[in-house]
Amino acid sequence: MAFPRPKPTTVETMAMERANPPFNIRKLAIKMHGSEKNLLLKEKFMAELARHPAFVLSDVHDLSKDQIRERTMEKFASMVYFVTHESIDTFTKRMELVGIADPGFWTRFGVHYGLFLGAVRGGSTPNQLSYWIDKGVLGLNGVIGCFGMTELAHGSNVAGLETTATFDKSSDEFVIHTPHLGATKWWIGGAASTATHCSVFARLIVDGKDHGVKTFVVQLRDTKTFGLLPGITIGDIGKKMGRDGIDNGYIQFTFVRIPRAHMLMKHTQVSRDGVVTEPPLAQLTYGALLGGRTAMVADSSNTTKKALTIAVRYAAVRRQFGKNDKGVETQILDYPIHQRRLIPLVAQSVAMGFTALKLTDMYEDMTAALDRLEPSDPNLEDILAKLKETHATSAGLKAFCTWACLDTIEKCRQSCGGHGYSAYSNLPAMLNDFAVQCTWEGDNTILALQAGRALIASAAGAAKGEKLAAGVAYLGDKNVATSKSDGSLSLADISNGFHNVAANVVRKAATEYAAARKAGKSKEAANDACSQARFVAAKVHTTGYIFHMFRAYVEEQEASPETDVLAQLAQLYGLWQVEELQGHFLRYGYFNGAQLDKASAKVDELCFQLRQVAIPLVDSFALSDHIVNSPLGKWDGSVYESYFNQVRAANPPPKEHPYFNRLIKPLLERETGHMEDPGAEMDLDDELAELAEERAAALKEAKPLVHKDVE
Amino acid sequence: MAFPRPKPTTVETMAMERANPPFNIRKLAIKMHGSEKNLLLKEKFMAELARHPAFVLSDVHDLSKDQIRERTMEKFASMVYFVTHESIDTFTKRMELVGIADPGFWTRFGVHYGLFLGAVRGGSTPNQLSYWIDKGVLGLNGVIGCFGMTELAHGSNVAGLETTATFDKSSDEFVIHTPHLGATKWWIGGAASTATHCSVFARLIVDGKDHGVKTFVVQLRDTKTFGLLPGITIGDIGKKMGRDGIDNGYIQFTFVRIPRAHMLMKHTQVSRDGVVTEPPLAQLTYGALLGGRTAMVADSSNTTKKALTIAVRYAAVRRQFGKNDKGVETQILDYPIHQRRLIPLVAQSVAMGFTALKLTDMYEDMTAALDRLEPSDPNLEDILAKLKETHATSAGLKAFCTWACLDTIEKCRQSCGGHGYSAYSNLPAMLNDFAVQCTWEGDNTILALQAGRALIASAAGAAKGEKLAAGVAYLGDKNVATSKSDGSLSLADISNGFHNVAANVVRKAATEYAAARKAGKSKEAANDACSQARFVAAKVHTTGYIFHMFRAYVEEQEASPETDVLAQLAQLYGLWQVEELQGHFLRYGYFNGAQLDKASAKVDELCFQLRQVAIPLVDSFALSDHIVNSPLGKWDGSVYESYFNQVRAANPPPKEHPYFNRLIKPLLERETGHMEDPGAEMDLDDELAELAEERAAALKEAKPLVHKDVE
Repeated sequence: MAFPRPKPTTVETMAMERANPPFNIRKLAIKMHGSEKNLLLKEKFMAELARHPAFVLSDVHDLSKDQIRERTMEKFASMVYFVTHESIDTFTKRMELVGIADPGFWTRFGVHYGLFLGAVRGGSTPNQLSYWIDKGVLGLNGVIGCFGMTELAHGSNVAGLETTATFDKSSDEFVIHTPHLGATKWWIGGAASTATHCSVFARLIVDGKDHGVKTFVVQLRDTKTFGLLPGITIGDIGKKMGRDGIDNGYIQFTFVRIPRAHMLMKHTQVSRDGVVTEPPLAQLTYGALLGGRTAMVADSSNTTKKALTIAVRYAAVRRQFGKNDKGVETQILDYPIHQRRLIPLVAQSVAMGFTALKLTDMYEDMTAALDRLEPSDPNLEDILAKLKETHATSAGLKAFCTWACLDTIEKCRQSCGGHGYSAYSNLPAMLNDFAVQCTWEGDNTILALQAGRALIASAAGAAKGEKLAAGVAYLGDKNVATSKSDGSLSLADISNGFHNVAANVVRKAATEYAAARKAGKSKEAANDACSQARFVAAKVHTTGYIFHMFRAYVEEQEASPETDVLAQLAQLYGLWQVEELQGHFLRYGYFNGAQLDKASAKVDELCFQLRQVAIPLVDSFALSDHIVNSPLGKWDGSVYESYFNQVRAANPPPKEHPYFNRLIKPLLERETGHMEDPGAEMDLDDELAELAEERAAALKEAKPLVHKDVE
Repeated sequence: MAFPRPKPTTVETMAMERANPPFNIRKLAIKMHGSEKNLLLKEKFMAELARHPAFVLSDVHDLSKDQIRERTMEKFASMVYFVTHESIDTFTKRMELVGIADPGFWTRFGVHYGLFLGAVRGGSTPNQLSYWIDKGVLGLNGVIGCFGMTELAHGSNVAGLETTATFDKSSDEFVIHTPHLGATKWWIGGAASTATHCSVFARLIVDGKDHGVKTFVVQLRDTKTFGLLPGITIGDIGKKMGRDGIDNGYIQFTFVRIPRAHMLMKHTQVSRDGVVTEPPLAQLTYGALLGGRTAMVADSSNTTKKALTIAVRYAAVRRQFGKNDKGVETQILDYPIHQRRLIPLVAQSVAMGFTALKLTDMYEDMTAALDRLEPSDPNLEDILAKLKETHATSAGLKAFCTWACLDTIEKCRQSCGGHGYSAYSNLPAMLNDFAVQCTWEGDNTILALQAGRALIASAAGAAKGEKLAAGVAYLGDKNVATSKSDGSLSLADISNGFHNVAANVVRKAATEYAAARKAGKSKEAANDACSQARFVAAKVHTTGYIFHMFRAYVEEQEASPETDVLAQLAQLYGLWQVEELQGHFLRYGYFNGAQLDKASAKVDELCFQLRQVAIPLVDSFALSDHIVNSPLGKWDGSVYESYFNQVRAANPPPKEHPYFNRLIKPLLERETGHMEDPGAEMDLDDELAELAEERAAALKEAKPLVHKDVE
């Protein structure tokens, strides 16, 4: 061979890592996925995607935004077959996998099937639903929808939206109108290039009275020619941080008329005479929000598993420093500091995965129980309370899991050193695609504060002796706040610790709230005053919740080598979070300094032990090379060859240098004689002296000289 | 007006924010920039850039990689005029500003002038330097350089590079060769499309003996035709996370011959007969590293100021929720939680800026002193010790300041809600461009560990009674580790607190190291064993260092309203970091729980007070709208109009829909009749049953079914 590679090669190193795992990888994978059927389905989907012509992933980093959009629409058409043939359950699992492979496409698909169709289903009378189904909303053959909620000046405050829908009694129509720039619909996925209809959230105005925001189906484009209908102005919002596959647009309505029947009237009705009938106080739809947030916890787990598959495999075969007497450098995964960087993140990823599985089970159990029970059944109240509590906790889970995922992706990227900066590592794209999860479907900070507010309410209820749902029951246990560790650092010890600190930080927030109210502040002002404390309460409670879920899962399992490794991961996750939150554990006396040192030493030890099985662990995440889409994370460890080949394939040398003659040649051929004597420096002090008047004026006006666009 | 805007408009709101600041913005800006001359120079540069045709910034998000590359080379040619006419000092300041505007271009320029020319200057004999200057290295007229250090398999471990330079005595040449794939030069900025020469770091082999890594100047391309020279293989590394302006390439050398004189021989010489002369133990070049790292601290401050200019201005004019009786919603900067998100980051940004200024002054003082003193002067030892200590601290400063900056950019982006996901907010590009700073010029984690190692050495020296440099003198004060707060939370109180916790965490690391050595571990293994403790020591020491620098600056200032606001910012930075690191402050008893509560309350209060002057504060960062390049961060607050206009300008509607006929029309016109009865779901259980044999085998083999590319 002309260029002999040093031994062991990365492929040989990976094979060594994979030899003789102490547990059965497939059995562990089954546990990670909840059931063997789930795993088999996922493998089936991965195989289908790997061969699907529109799901080529290796070239995505070099596509233009327009090329990505077009490829997204190609995927769209193929998915319609599945959505109209598979059960909802199966199709949901298919889309979960598609979302890991291509978040941009998943978003476009979800905008029609999740958001638009969800709005139509949730807001239509039976007649209206039949109508839209006849129009083709289920199969995209007649209606391709988008979701017109967000406006340029209003995101989180949906009640403040400013698009208007004014009833015209004479023609039995609503007139949809954008009254000013800030009311322009913005961020509307699918509007720019692919939607025919839009579920528009607009203020219902009848006889000059504003009835608040309702939902209206507005056709945007002619379904035959795709031309914009009269009064509809659409533009492309353009380049985003990620997810360029979905064509977000802005929409302005200028006196657009729609039939009255196109207002979705399941809840609020408007009669021919313009009589507005509001429903009785709307049942809070806990279920829909809980489902969406559980999916985001699952997505956070799946995405971190993908990132860690890359980072752990790379770290197992990358060697740097520490050359031994055979001339072989040390695998970076053998450095304790690198174990510290990655292994706790693996534990967290797995913890989020089991939290999502348990949440799903809990939600299914609660829904089934609600269906079975009579309204008078005493258990009904308990189950409703549990549903309400899980919903409140899910706000915190969405916030802290998506933040943890974004942080994990970037830590994985940095752990790959220089190669993590290449687009082909796929980690930059994962970061840019995932980042929006921290903002949409509820801004994370606002959700965390909502979770904190609910915890304060639960604490207040506990103080009144009310019965609490399981997830917050610890708030009612008087001994919890002053408990101390038994020093064992067991899963039970860690759980008790989290109950202690969560109870204390929730009480701190509740105390601040009560003090603010007593001082005369309104509820809103009092909530603002304790917002930082509410945030901390939500963080600690949510972190504990994830740990409790993981621990519960582990303790339900039969003894096996797979359960052993899960127990180690659970202990690592718990103790690492204790370390991260050690201020609270010390403050409230659950752990003392010596015990924290012991916990840190245990974290080091668990990181070392789990490093020995790091490769089998990420293998159990069961992601195909196609989905992982990174030469740094290939199953066989062929990092350098795969990376080199992908770089060469994606960047064929141009026949002609695009700008040598115009820009480089003149530079190279410049005559030295044209340069001034380098010794004759320009005297800037003279130049600056000329500005003396302006300088004095600027000092007087107290603003910098250059503060806006220079003309 | 057809579309009347609600009042107050964002522009009116911004004007209100800017009215009657309690301090003189320009005086504060002068302090932030170190001197009035620095500020005036910066404003001059900003004005020049704003009009420069190649420095148009508003369209950068929609350029292709190739277009960005070409525009970078246009900038290159124009900068050459300045570099050959201005003093080094002035040009350095110009480049500092250019780096804030366009990191990709700054990198390409720095690769030639900083890295390549730096290697040539630092490694050449006087004759060699003359030779390369004659060839045109100072003005790019004959030599455009790149820096060939990193290889595919070696980044951090420079001593482990594998490119070879074998001496051929018969022809008086070195033969440069890439022995295998992993030795391929990788990440070489400028190699792909714009460099003619390369400073190649290769192993010197003479008579079969390996003398380690030396520097060789290798010509890559013909300077007339730009064709690759024989034996040179170059490819484009392609798409990166950011900084696409610099054309990184890979280089493989296949028996490339260069004259012996092209090895840079200031330190190691090779004679005509192949006699290798090594220099005496090389003087550690503290200065070069210190200069580079100070620049990265400054860049972290400048970049965070740019991000905060956007986020703070947006938060001041964005209104959401909290409608008052006039129908006006609340500015989000008025929410305590939003103040908590941004104002501490403003304090940190300013702290880093003053740290950079003070580091620069300290370095200049030390260099001047070293020049003046005789080798026998007793002060020489002190100054060398100070230089060595500042160099060690600078490793930690580079790591923690760049991490803080990356974190700040993302927090600023998220604080802009949905609009932060638009490329035009400029925050995604800032994140993607900046991220590499955490990896290059020393991987942050490795640097942090180096800083920790130096702290352990200082602690050991202190234990032996050695005199310590000022920055680590606290390690020698026996009372520091058990000191307690006086409860005032003053700047002095905070300083003492940081000395306490830093002394304790350094001692912890030193104790772990000593224990590992005593247990028989080698120095390397002992360092590994205490790596987590070293990391924590570096973090706490470095954070304290930044605070001490900021406090020192403030206490040097004469009393004025500008000094008052800086003092508030310093106290906020200190107390916020106390909160972030509260575990340590509690653990080592400097603060008790009640004092920490008081500190948190003070943080809330300072955030509120500084919010009142948030707009004048970011105005004092003195960044033109052109440099900030974000409609969300315009000086006049015209957020919605600017954003809308930029989106429309960047995304003109295409004449024809690019894929309606091919992909959307068939979807819309699909006949419903072709769908199967939706009730007939595919029976997956049957499908899965067929896989039973494979499933059993996979369980036995213990690996997932789909684990590599599907054929």
